[in-house]
Amino acid sequence: MARTPDEYISSLGDGREVWYRGVRVSSIADHPVLSIAARHLSKIYAMGDRLYHDSELGSISKYYKIPRGSEDLLERHRMIYRHTYECNGIFNIGQAIGSDALFALMIVSKKIDAKYRTNYYERVINYYKYIVKNDLSIAVAQTDVKGDRSKRPHEQRDPDLYVRVVDVRSDGIVVRGAKAHTTQAAVSDEIIVIPTRAMTPKDSDYAVAFAIPANTKGLRMIVRPIDEVEGNSSAVLSRKDYELETLTIFDNVFVPWDRVFMFREHEYAGLLANLFATYHRFTAVSYRSAMANLYLGAASLAAKANGVFEAPHIRSRIIEIILWKEIMRMGAIASAVNPVIDEDIAIPNPLYTNIAKLYSNTNFSKVLEALVDIVGGIVSTLPSEEDLKGELGDLIAKYLAGAVDGKERIAILKIAKELAGSSLAGYALGLMIHAEGSAEASRIGLAREYNLSEAEELVKRILGNT
Amino acid sequence: MARTPDEYISSLGDGREVWYRGVRVSSIADHPVLSIAARHLSKIYAMGDRLYHDSELGSISKYYKIPRGSEDLLERHRMIYRHTYECNGIFNIGQAIGSDALFALMIVSKKIDAKYRTNYYERVINYYKYIVKNDLSIAVAQTDVKGDRSKRPHEQRDPDLYVRVVDVRSDGIVVRGAKAHTTQAAVSDEIIVIPTRAMTPKDSDYAVAFAIPANTKGLRMIVRPIDEVEGNSSAVLSRKDYELETLTIFDNVFVPWDRVFMFREHEYAGLLANLFATYHRFTAVSYRSAMANLYLGAASLAAKANGVFEAPHIRSRIIEIILWKEIMRMGAIASAVNPVIDEDIAIPNPLYTNIAKLYSNTNFSKVLEALVDIVGGIVSTLPSEEDLKGELGDLIAKYLAGAVDGKERIAILKIAKELAGSSLAGYALGLMIHAEGSAEASRIGLAREYNLSEAEELVKRILGNT
Amino acid sequence: MARTPDEYISSLGDGREVWYRGVRVSSIADHPVLSIAARHLSKIYAMGDRLYHDSELGSISKYYKIPRGSEDLLERHRMIYRHTYECNGIFNIGQAIGSDALFALMIVSKKIDAKYRTNYYERVINYYKYIVKNDLSIAVAQTDVKGDRSKRPHEQRDPDLYVRVVDVRSDGIVVRGAKAHTTQAAVSDEIIVIPTRAMTPKDSDYAVAFAIPANTKGLRMIVRPIDEVEGNSSAVLSRKDYELETLTIFDNVFVPWDRVFMFREHEYAGLLANLFATYHRFTAVSYRSAMANLYLGAASLAAKANGVFEAPHIRSRIIEIILWKEIMRMGAIASAVNPVIDEDIAIPNPLYTNIAKLYSNTNFSKVLEALVDIVGGIVSTLPSEEDLKGELGDLIAKYLAGAVDGKERIAILKIAKELAGSSLAGYALGLMIHAEGSAEASRIGLAREYNLSEAEELVKRILGNT
Amino acid sequence: MARTPDEYISSLGDGREVWYRGVRVSSIADHPVLSIAARHLSKIYAMGDRLYHDSELGSISKYYKIPRGSEDLLERHRMIYRHTYECNGIFNIGQAIGSDALFALMIVSKKIDAKYRTNYYERVINYYKYIVKNDLSIAVAQTDVKGDRSKRPHEQRDPDLYVRVVDVRSDGIVVRGAKAHTTQAAVSDEIIVIPTRAMTPKDSDYAVAFAIPANTKGLRMIVRPIDEVEGNSSAVLSRKDYELETLTIFDNVFVPWDRVFMFREHEYAGLLANLFATYHRFTAVSYRSAMANLYLGAASLAAKANGVFEAPHIRSRIIEIILWKEIMRMGAIASAVNPVIDEDIAIPNPLYTNIAKLYSNTNFSKVLEALVDIVGGIVSTLPSEEDLKGELGDLIAKYLAGAVDGKERIAILKIAKELAGSSLAGYALGLMIHAEGSAEASRIGLAREYNLSEAEELVKRILGNT
Repeated sequence: MARTPDEYISSLGDGREVWYRGVRVSSIADHPVLSIAARHLSKIYAMGDRLYHDSELGSISKYYKIPRGSEDLLERHRMIYRHTYECNGIFNIGQAIGSDALFALMIVSKKIDAKYRTNYYERVINYYKYIVKNDLSIAVAQTDVKGDRSKRPHEQRDPDLYVRVVDVRSDGIVVRGAKAHTTQAAVSDEIIVIPTRAMTPKDSDYAVAFAIPANTKGLRMIVRPIDEVEGNSSAVLSRKDYELETLTIFDNVFVPWDRVFMFREHEYAGLLANLFATYHRFTAVSYRSAMANLYLGAASLAAKANGVFEAPHIRSRIIEIILWKEIMRMGAIASAVNPVIDEDIAIPNPLYTNIAKLYSNTNFSKVLEALVDIVGGIVSTLPSEEDLKGELGDLIAKYLAGAVDGKERIAILKIAKELAGSSLAGYALGLMIHAEGSAEASRIGLAREYNLSEAEELVKRILGNT
Repeated sequence: MARTPDEYISSLGDGREVWYRGVRVSSIADHPVLSIAARHLSKIYAMGDRLYHDSELGSISKYYKIPRGSEDLLERHRMIYRHTYECNGIFNIGQAIGSDALFALMIVSKKIDAKYRTNYYERVINYYKYIVKNDLSIAVAQTDVKGDRSKRPHEQRDPDLYVRVVDVRSDGIVVRGAKAHTTQAAVSDEIIVIPTRAMTPKDSDYAVAFAIPANTKGLRMIVRPIDEVEGNSSAVLSRKDYELETLTIFDNVFVPWDRVFMFREHEYAGLLANLFATYHRFTAVSYRSAMANLYLGAASLAAKANGVFEAPHIRSRIIEIILWKEIMRMGAIASAVNPVIDEDIAIPNPLYTNIAKLYSNTNFSKVLEALVDIVGGIVSTLPSEEDLKGELGDLIAKYLAGAVDGKERIAILKIAKELAGSSLAGYALGLMIHAEGSAEASRIGLAREYNLSEAEELVKRILGNT
Repeated sequence: MARTPDEYISSLGDGREVWYRGVRVSSIADHPVLSIAARHLSKIYAMGDRLYHDSELGSISKYYKIPRGSEDLLERHRMIYRHTYECNGIFNIGQAIGSDALFALMIVSKKIDAKYRTNYYERVINYYKYIVKNDLSIAVAQTDVKGDRSKRPHEQRDPDLYVRVVDVRSDGIVVRGAKAHTTQAAVSDEIIVIPTRAMTPKDSDYAVAFAIPANTKGLRMIVRPIDEVEGNSSAVLSRKDYELETLTIFDNVFVPWDRVFMFREHEYAGLLANLFATYHRFTAVSYRSAMANLYLGAASLAAKANGVFEAPHIRSRIIEIILWKEIMRMGAIASAVNPVIDEDIAIPNPLYTNIAKLYSNTNFSKVLEALVDIVGGIVSTLPSEEDLKGELGDLIAKYLAGAVDGKERIAILKIAKELAGSSLAGYALGLMIHAEGSAEASRIGLAREYNLSEAEELVKRILGNT
Repeated sequence: MARTPDEYISSLGDGREVWYRGVRVSSIADHPVLSIAARHLSKIYAMGDRLYHDSELGSISKYYKIPRGSEDLLERHRMIYRHTYECNGIFNIGQAIGSDALFALMIVSKKIDAKYRTNYYERVINYYKYIVKNDLSIAVAQTDVKGDRSKRPHEQRDPDLYVRVVDVRSDGIVVRGAKAHTTQAAVSDEIIVIPTRAMTPKDSDYAVAFAIPANTKGLRMIVRPIDEVEGNSSAVLSRKDYELETLTIFDNVFVPWDRVFMFREHEYAGLLANLFATYHRFTAVSYRSAMANLYLGAASLAAKANGVFEAPHIRSRIIEIILWKEIMRMGAIASAVNPVIDEDIAIPNPLYTNIAKLYSNTNFSKVLEALVDIVGGIVSTLPSEEDLKGELGDLIAKYLAGAVDGKERIAILKIAKELAGSSLAGYALGLMIHAEGSAEASRIGLAREYNLSEAEELVKRILGNT
C-alpha cells in the first residue's frame, strides 16, 4: 500500500525521542531545521518510477524488490542514481539502506537456521512483509561507538561501548549501548540494528541483530547540529535537501523475539556485517556518482563564469572530478554484471564494489581541491548573503562579475562556497571518507578476499617451463 | 578456413623486407630472436576457443566476429583476457588490432559513401572477407613519425613526416612516409594503414587509409632491438613471448584502388582515428588487465618468499597492483555493457574505455614501483644467470634463501628482475604510457566528448529554485 | 615607539567604513565577532621577542627589519613560525604582509627611479619610516577581482574590474576598483595597494601602487561572514583567533602624491607583483608550517584517544602531515640560506619558496583527509555543543569514550571537527590552495624562472663526447 | 699523500676475488666492462677541488674532512653534487660512503668505549689515518642478505644469513655471511662492514663491525651483470660511467683485532646502523639531486626536439622532475643548516635527511614516467644502434626528425631511451627505491624520531583555555 509523502510526514508525530541542540524536539514536521530532512525523505514517496508489481505483495516500492540477478542490480543502481539526482544530488537513504540490511539478513538468517534450527529467516520475512506492505522507511544502526579501537567489545572498560544484550526475557531481550552516525534515524519509521564487525565467542552478547520502531521506549536520538543550514546564510542546497545523523542511544531497550534476527550466534556477526556492507557500498557508489554531479556541475559552471573553461590545467581538474564520478559508476556496473548468487539472492560483486568504494574514499579530497582550484579564493571569502542582499549588493555584484554578469556569477559562487568552502565541505569530507566503511576497512577486505592464485599460477607456469 | 600455427609460420617466407640490427633478415622463422615473436603470434592459431561459426563465412576466427551488442563485446573482452593469459601474460595482437581497424573502417566507410557516393564500404567488406576466409593476421600502422609536434602534417619542413599520397594512378595510388612502432608488423600477413589524427583541408593528401600485404615492394620494416632477450641473460618470459615493433617505412608504395579505403576525405580522418582508438583501447584494457597478473603474481610470490606478505605496507602495495588490474577490467565491462551502436555495429562505450585507459597510463609506473618495493634492491643487483649456473651457484643460492629456499626464491627473483629491473621494465613503461594513445590524448578526448550538461543542469536547477 | 595592544585596539575607532552581514559596523572593538580578529592582531604587540634596536630608528618591530642576508631571513622565518604558534596556530599578518610589500617596493622603486628619474624610492622610505616609528599594522590589497580571467585589465567589459587611475590631480590621483580577499584590512592601520600581475602598455592605468589609511574616504570594506565562529557552536579555536578577509572597494579614492609608489610604469608592475609574491610566499610557508601543528597535534591526540596510534596505516597518515609541515620548513630554510641580493636587500630564494608553496597548495587537501581518516566519522556527526552541555551530556560522554575518557576525547573531537569537519575546514581549503598565489601560478613562475641549462648542458656534454 | 687516477687503477691488481658472469676476473683494469666502473672511480682522484689541508694529516681528500658544523656539511653536499655532475650524473661513491661510515664509527666507538672501557675509538682513528694518508677508496657492506624478513638474525634457519662471528682467536675474529649489493666493492681498496639493523642480546654474534682490504682471503665478490653496457647497443652514458654492485660473500674471513670496531655490543648495532644511514642518506640526496639533471636535461631537450616544450601538460611534467631534484636539495640544505652535534662531530639533521630521502624514494617512478611521457613511445621502439649506423641510417634519420633534424633528435632519443626505456631504467628504479634504505624504513624512522609534543602541546593549550 503505497504511502504518500504527506502520510509519511504525519506519521512522524509518534512520540519518538529526538534531541536537537540540547532540546527535546516536540514536532519534527514543524521544526525549522529537522523538517528539511523529513521533507527530503518524503520525496522518496513522490518518485514517479518507484513502484513495481510483485505477484505476492502487490504494488510495492522497488527498493524492496529482492535482486535475483544482474538486471535487478543494474536497475537498482540506476534508480538510486536517478533518485539522488532528483533530490538535488543528495542521497535519499529512506528505503535504500533498510533494503540493503534486509537482503543481508535474509541470506544470513537462512544460514543460521540451517545450523541451529532457529527460525530467524521466518522472522525476517515476516518483518520484511510488514515493512513492504506498509511502505515504511528504515534507518540502519550499525557502527558502534567502539571506545578503544585497539580492543574487542568485551575488552572495553565500559561494556556498553558496543550494543549488547543486557537481559533476556521470555518475551524478548533488552539491549543497551549506542550506535554512532545513524543516517536519517530521527525521521525513519523503523531502525534495524546489526553488528559492526566479526565477533569472537567472548563477544557473544554483542552478536545481536534486531529491528525496532523509531518511537520505542529507551531509544534516544541526538541529532548532529545542521550547521550547513544554520551556519551559512548563503546556503542554497542544504535548505532543500540534507540527511541528518544521530547518535543513537539504546537505553535498556526491549525487543520482542519476533524482532530479533541474531542472538549470540557470534560466528555469523562478521558475515552479516560484511554482507550488509557489500550491499550498502553498492548503494553508496550509486548515490555518490549521482552526487558527483554537484561538484562537476559547479566546477564546470564556475570555470565558464571565470572565463577559464578552456585552460588545460582547468581541464585536468574537471577530468579529476569526472573520473571520480565515472569510476564509481564503472564499479557499480561491473559489480551488477558479475553478481554473487547466495540463497537465490543476487549480491553485488564485492571486489568491484570495494574497489569503487576505495577509490571514492581516497579521492574525494581531490574533488574538493579541484573545485576550489577552479572557483578561486572567493570560495572562502564570498561576502555574506546579508551583504549580497543589502545596501551594497549592487556594488558587490558589479565587482564580482566574470565572463558572465555579477548576479549570475554570484549564484554559482554561492553553491560553490556551499560545496567546497563551508561547513558542508567539512561534513562531506567526513562522510565521503568514512560512511559505508573507511578506506582501510576496504583495503583489508580487498586483501582478504582477493584471489591471488590466478596471478600466482601464471608466474609459476612461466617459471616452471624454463 | 582455419590456419594452423605451422601454416602461418611457413607463410612468413614471402620476401618481405625486414631489418634487424642493421642486417636484412633472410628468414624470420629461423632467426633466433625474431622467431620468438613469430611463434608467439602463431599461438593465436592454436587457441582451443578461437573459432565460431558464421552463417555466411563458415568457421572463422572469433576476433573477426562483428560485435552487434553487449554480449559480443563482453565475450571479446574475455577472449582477449584469456588469450593474453594463455600467452604468458603477453598480448597477442595478431588478429585483435586488425579487427579493431576493420570494424572502424566498416562504420566510417559507410558514412563516406553516404556523403560522396563512393564505394569504400564494399571494398572494406571484400577485404574483410578475404582476411577472414584466409584466417590472416594483421598489423595496423597508425602513428606517423610526426616530426615537429607543434605543426600539422602539411606544415612540416619535410612533407613526408606523415604518410601521404605522392602519386595518383589509374590503377591505384602511391604513398610515402613512415609509421612508428607498428606492433608485430614484421610477422603479420597484412598491414592496415589509417590516419593518426584529424586532418584539415590542407592536409588532404594525408587523409588516406589502405591495406597492403607485408611483402609489398617498398615497405621496409626496421625492428627495434629486443634487448629483453639479448641483454638479460636471466630472461625467462621474453624468451617465450614478446611482440616486436617496427619503424615502418613506405618508400613509394603502390596501393591498388580496391585496397584504398579513404582517399582525401579529410573530414573523416579524425572519426576513423578515434573510432579505431576506441576499439583498440577496449582491446588494450582487456589485455593489460590480463598482463597485470604478471606483476601481481610476481609481487605476491616475492612477498611470500621474503616473508613479508602479511606486513600492512606490503598489503597496500599489492592492492595498488590489484587496483590497476581490476579498474581496467571494470572499465572494459562497463564499456561493453553500455555500447554505442552505429551502422548496426557495437562500439565499446568511449567514456569508460578512455577512463580505464587513462588510469592504466598514469598508474603503471606505480605498479613497477610497488613490485620493486616488495621484491627489494636485489631486483637491481641479482647475480647473472652465468653466475647462478656457475661454480659459485650453490653458494649464491645459500645466501639468496628467504622464507623459501634459495633456488625457489632465485626463480622468483629472476622474473621479478625481468619485469621490474631490466630492459623489459623500461620497455613496458613506454608501452604502458604511450601504446594505444597517450594520457594527454585520453584527457583531451574525455574533455571533448564528456557531456557536462547533466551536471550543469542539476546545479542550475538548484540555483533556479532559490 | 612601540605600541601596546590597547593602543592599537583603541586606534580602530577612526571612522573606517566596515560592513558585516549587511550592516555598517560602528565599533569594531565592541563587535562580538570582528573584535576577535582585532584582538588577534593586537597580540602582535604583546610578543616578548618582537623588538630590535635600529641604529637610526630606535626600538622597532622586527618585522620591519630590512633583511640584508641569510641570517636575517632565517630569523624572520623563525619569528613568523613562533608568532603563529603563539597565536594558537593562526597566522598573524599584522606587520608581516606590510613589510613584505615594503621590501618589494624599496627594490622596485629604486629601479623605476633609475630609469625615469622619479622619486618613488624617497616616498617609499618616508612612508616606511612613518610606519615603523608609529609601529603600525598594514594590510596589502593585491588580488583584483579580475572579471573575465581570459582577458587583460583593459579588455574587460567593465574597466573597473582591476583597480585603476580614474583621475589625475595636482595633489594626487583618484583610483577606482576592488580587491578581493584582503586579509585583516578592516582591522589594520594602513592598506598598501599593488598590482596583481604584469601589465602591457594598454594597461598602464592599472599599473599603480600606493598606500592609504584604513579610514580613507571611499574605501569600503565588506567582511566575509565568519561562519567558523557563528556557525559552529563547538568552535574552540576560532573564538580565540582568526583573521578576517574583506572585499575591498575603492570608490573613487583619493591618494596624495607622496603615497603613490608606482604610476603607469607598466613594465614594472610584473616585477613588483612577483617580488612581493616571493617575500609573501616565504612568509606563507613560515606561518603554514607553524599552522601545520594544529592538524598534526589533533591527529596525534585523536589517534591516541581512539587507541590506534600504533597502527601502520595511521602512522602513514601522520607522516603525510609531518611531510606537509616539514617540507615547507625545508623550503623556507633553503630559501633563506640561498637568498638573492638586489639593491642591497636580501630576497628569499624564489625557487625554493615557490616549490615549498606549490607543495603546500597541492597537498593540504590530503592533510585534511589524513586528519579525518584518523579521527573517524564522528568528525562529521559530533553532537552539538548544546547537547554536550545539556541534559544528556553525561550520557553522550559515556558513549564517546575511547582509550581516554569521554570528556577528554570530546575535547579532542571538538577541535578535530573544527579543523576538518566544519566551515573552518572549507575556509582553510580555499585559503591553503589560493592564498599567496594558486598552484598554477607557482607552476608558471617555476617554469619561467627555472634555469634548465645546467641540466641540458650535462646531457649535451654526454652526447657530444660519444 | 694524494693518489693519481693511474696509481689507483694499478693498485687493483692485488689478487682480489672478483667474479663476472660466471668467470673469475683476472684483471679488472683490462676487463671491457668492469674497467668502466674502475675508471669511473678513478675520476675522484682527478677532481680539481678535492683536496684540503689538514693541520695534522697534511693535504688530504675533502671527503675525509670530519664535519664540525653547518658549513662543513653544506660544502660536503655541494662537493658531492659537483662531483656527481662531473661524472656525467653518476654518483662517485669512492670516498663518500667510506667517510660516511667512518664518521658514524667515530661517534659510536666513543660511546662504546665509555661504557665498556674498550679501545674502539683508537682503532677507528688509526684506521682513519691509514685511509686518509694513503688516499684510499672504501666500499661499505651493510645490507645483509637477510633470509626470511619476518625473523631476526638468530631466528633464521641458516644462521649465516646475516654476517656473524664464527670464531674468536687471540689475534682476531673469523666472520661468515654475505652482504647484498655492495656498491663498487670490487674496485675499492677497502671494505667496511657494519650491521644492518638493531640487534637483541640473542643476536650478539651479529653485532660486529670491521674493515678489511678488498683482497682479503675468503672475500668473494660477485658482480651484477652490467646489462646497461652489454645489453643496449645504443648506450651512451653507461659506457662512460656506472657503478658496479656485488654480492659480497665472507667465506670464513679473518679480521685482526685492530680492524674490529664493534664486537658483540649488540645495544649499539642499531645506533651505528642509523648513524651511518643518516650520513649516507645525506650523501644520497646530494648525489641524487645532481643525477636528476640527467632526467631533467633529457626531458627538456626532448620536449624541444619534439616541438612541445611550451605545452602546459609538458610543463607540468618538467616541473615534476624539477621538484624531485630541488626538494632533495632543499632537504640537504636544511639538514646541513640544522645539524646535530655529537662527540664534537656534526651529523646532518636526520629529520630533513629522511624526508628528502623518502620523497626521493617514492617519486622517482614518476620522474621516469614524466620523461617517457615527454619523449614519446619511441623511447621503447627506437631502432638499434646497428640500424642507425647501417645501410638505412639516413632513411631512419629522415623519419626521426622533429623540431630539430633527425641526427640531433636521435642523439637525444638515445640518451632518453637509455635513461627511461632500457635496462638502466629498471636498474635505476630499484636503486632509487631501495638504495640507502627503503621508503618504509624511512617512514618508521621518521615516526619513531619525530617529536610530536610541539604539535600536541599547541592543541592541548587551545583546549585547556576554553
